[in-house]
Amino acid sequence: MPTVSLIEYEDASPAVREVYDDIRATRKTTFINNFWKALAVNAAQLARTWFAAKEVMAPGALDPLTKELIYIAVSVANKCEYCIHSHTAAARAKGMTDEQYGELLAVIGMAHSTNGLVTSMQVPVDEVFKVK
Amino acid sequence: MPTVSLIEYEDASPAVREVYDDIRATRKTTFINNFWKALAVNAAQLARTWFAAKEVMAPGALDPLTKELIYIAVSVANKCEYCIHSHTAAARAKGMTDEQYGELLAVIGMAHSTNGLVTSMQVPVDEVFKVK
Amino acid sequence: MPTVSLIEYEDASPAVREVYDDIRATRKTTFINNFWKALAVNAAQLARTWFAAKEVMAPGALDPLTKELIYIAVSVANKCEYCIHSHTAAARAKGMTDEQYGELLAVIGMAHSTNGLVTSMQVPVDEVFKVK
Amino acid sequence: MPTVSLIEYEDASPAVREVYDDIRATRKTTFINNFWKALAVNAAQLARTWFAAKEVMAPGALDPLTKELIYIAVSVANKCEYCIHSHTAAARAKGMTDEQYGELLAVIGMAHSTNGLVTSMQVPVDEVFKVK
Amino acid sequence: MPTVSLIEYEDASPAVREVYDDIRATRKTTFINNFWKALAVNAAQLARTWFAAKEVMAPGALDPLTKELIYIAVSVANKCEYCIHSHTAAARAKGMTDEQYGELLAVIGMAHSTNGLVTSMQVPVDEVFKVK
Amino acid sequence: MPTVSLIEYEDASPAVREVYDDIRATRKTTFINNFWKALAVNAAQLARTWFAAKEVMAPGALDPLTKELIYIAVSVANKCEYCIHSHTAAARAKGMTDEQYGELLAVIGMAHSTNGLVTSMQVPVDEVFKVK
Repeated sequence: MPTVSLIEYEDASPAVREVYDDIRATRKTTFINNFWKALAVNAAQLARTWFAAKEVMAPGALDPLTKELIYIAVSVANKCEYCIHSHTAAARAKGMTDEQYGELLAVIGMAHSTNGLVTSMQVPVDEVFKVK
Repeated sequence: MPTVSLIEYEDASPAVREVYDDIRATRKTTFINNFWKALAVNAAQLARTWFAAKEVMAPGALDPLTKELIYIAVSVANKCEYCIHSHTAAARAKGMTDEQYGELLAVIGMAHSTNGLVTSMQVPVDEVFKVK
Repeated sequence: MPTVSLIEYEDASPAVREVYDDIRATRKTTFINNFWKALAVNAAQLARTWFAAKEVMAPGALDPLTKELIYIAVSVANKCEYCIHSHTAAARAKGMTDEQYGELLAVIGMAHSTNGLVTSMQVPVDEVFKVK
Repeated sequence: MPTVSLIEYEDASPAVREVYDDIRATRKTTFINNFWKALAVNAAQLARTWFAAKEVMAPGALDPLTKELIYIAVSVANKCEYCIHSHTAAARAKGMTDEQYGELLAVIGMAHSTNGLVTSMQVPVDEVFKVK
Repeated sequence: MPTVSLIEYEDASPAVREVYDDIRATRKTTFINNFWKALAVNAAQLARTWFAAKEVMAPGALDPLTKELIYIAVSVANKCEYCIHSHTAAARAKGMTDEQYGELLAVIGMAHSTNGLVTSMQVPVDEVFKVK
Repeated sequence: MPTVSLIEYEDASPAVREVYDDIRATRKTTFINNFWKALAVNAAQLARTWFAAKEVMAPGALDPLTKELIYIAVSVANKCEYCIHSHTAAARAKGMTDEQYGELLAVIGMAHSTNGLVTSMQVPVDEVFKVK
């Protein structure tokens, strides 16, 4: 048996369709990407995840492109191939330029490098960073 | 024997002092945090890391605060305690507000959640994300 | 040169065949999955791994399906695609229902989310959890 | 500035208090662990996380102890110290015996070992695991 | 209840003592480090782990110091603080010099950096690396 | 839009060509693997990464094959498929035998297993490993 089945709109239960409709309305496109189709195996989980994501990624104190860059950074560190692809696409759709993409890579590479060095050496946290 | 020794300015070789001097001049403070003192066990590595970090984190197509948020996101996903502490401090020093910090947490939490879900289900990458 | 070669029964040394025979007898099938064929590059490692796995995954204080769910959870967090596929298949073979699978996903998603949040904030461990 | 502040009931906003009250009522204790106090920096995130966790961890197709074991397994693989402590405590409170704990460790150790081996060798997924 | 209890020689069962005796004889010291004392909650797991480790870390096609360096590299990438401390100590006991340690750090830092970059960009594997 | 574009020599800027030329001269081959072609989106990052890698991987207190084994170990723990493939090929090119490869796998498997066990149990670091 396969790990995942993708549930199409036509085969979806009313509870799932309701979420699909909101995804389409919010994004102004009929396209629904595979993540949501896979998640639809559990309608409650699908709804919970979609409505939370919609709220979290909306403009706020941080702008939507900055949020996508943060999302990509987490997904890279977590090695989630699908997530990297879909959020890199989302970042480009929200205006990420080639130069910004190049700098994103540089920060990610630098952070991985120093993360590895710090962890190797078990560097003690400076007191000044712990002050209440 | 301990995992790491911290090399103070007084005990440093000329090659290490040169880097320490540049850190102080760049940051306009005499404070040098433990990461650099630990890295000083290998002077070439210290120099390479500092000059690369200085270049990467400078203002460019992405502003310095955005770069710090990306750095934090990588460090969280990599579970690097020291890095989280020091870059959260750096982000606050560069103006991160409580509201921005709250949204950073929300994006990080959401990304971890969906990363886990996608990986569990081995969701196939949509063709549209792969187009050349 | 490829990263891995898969050793078939016909080409295997006697030490490797002995393990393959035990895998077949234990599982009551002639099928041997790629993991064991790849591991056979080192016969001692193959034997050590198979006999330990057989002992660990046997019914005990935890039932075999629960053990598979734990195995999947580790494999997801470790992003091991092969492991997720093979243990999701094993869990289905041991009776995992769609509803159980849906809840497994939900727990995994929730755990990843809170893991990310806790790590971001460097939440101090409550004293009550540390009591001897 | 510290990475995190813990918000006590007395200092909490009405929106945060409402969640704290539900935590207390659900768990039948006045104790609120640090995770929720730290999360309270963002009231919307606190509410979203608590109500989702309550729903996900409730008895369903999987029993509550099994869910805790899965949660621990994810937290171990994610190296989330706080999460391991709090969910190991929760599992014991839900009846985990020493023997079950010993077997949990064994499965986790085995899964990490084979995850590492599979990833090293880049073992190709068996066709049978991919069948639709 | 605490996550772990450490079982001392005096309080150990005969099965556990037998392993402790072999650890002492092999290492020519009465000292037993906490890892084994914690693992002793499950005597079968303790024996399995000790005898496998003894076999794997013995001199072979790779010398013992090289094996320790590989062990450290894995432990750093897995962020296992205890493992980094104990295997860095073991490497020093097996003759690791400060210069070798400095180069170990440099390779680890470089590997983390390029791992992060490769993953960010989802670089396709060159055909030549896949040849059978 | 795709996550990555690969920049061929013919289409490269002078700054990128200079690095490509040095890669070819250093490795005595005209072949340039995809990692460098992908990194070329950001010429400064390409140069920084190549010259640092060349310096770090050169013979020193550790021999080049040992450095490759460490690199593989990090890449496995980080689940970087491309990195595992390319550095396993590099290790073979530098003389890694099948027997050495078999032992590398065994050490990696053992390290992952004990890393998982130690983290599960939150084993306290022995005082002796912390001594200044």
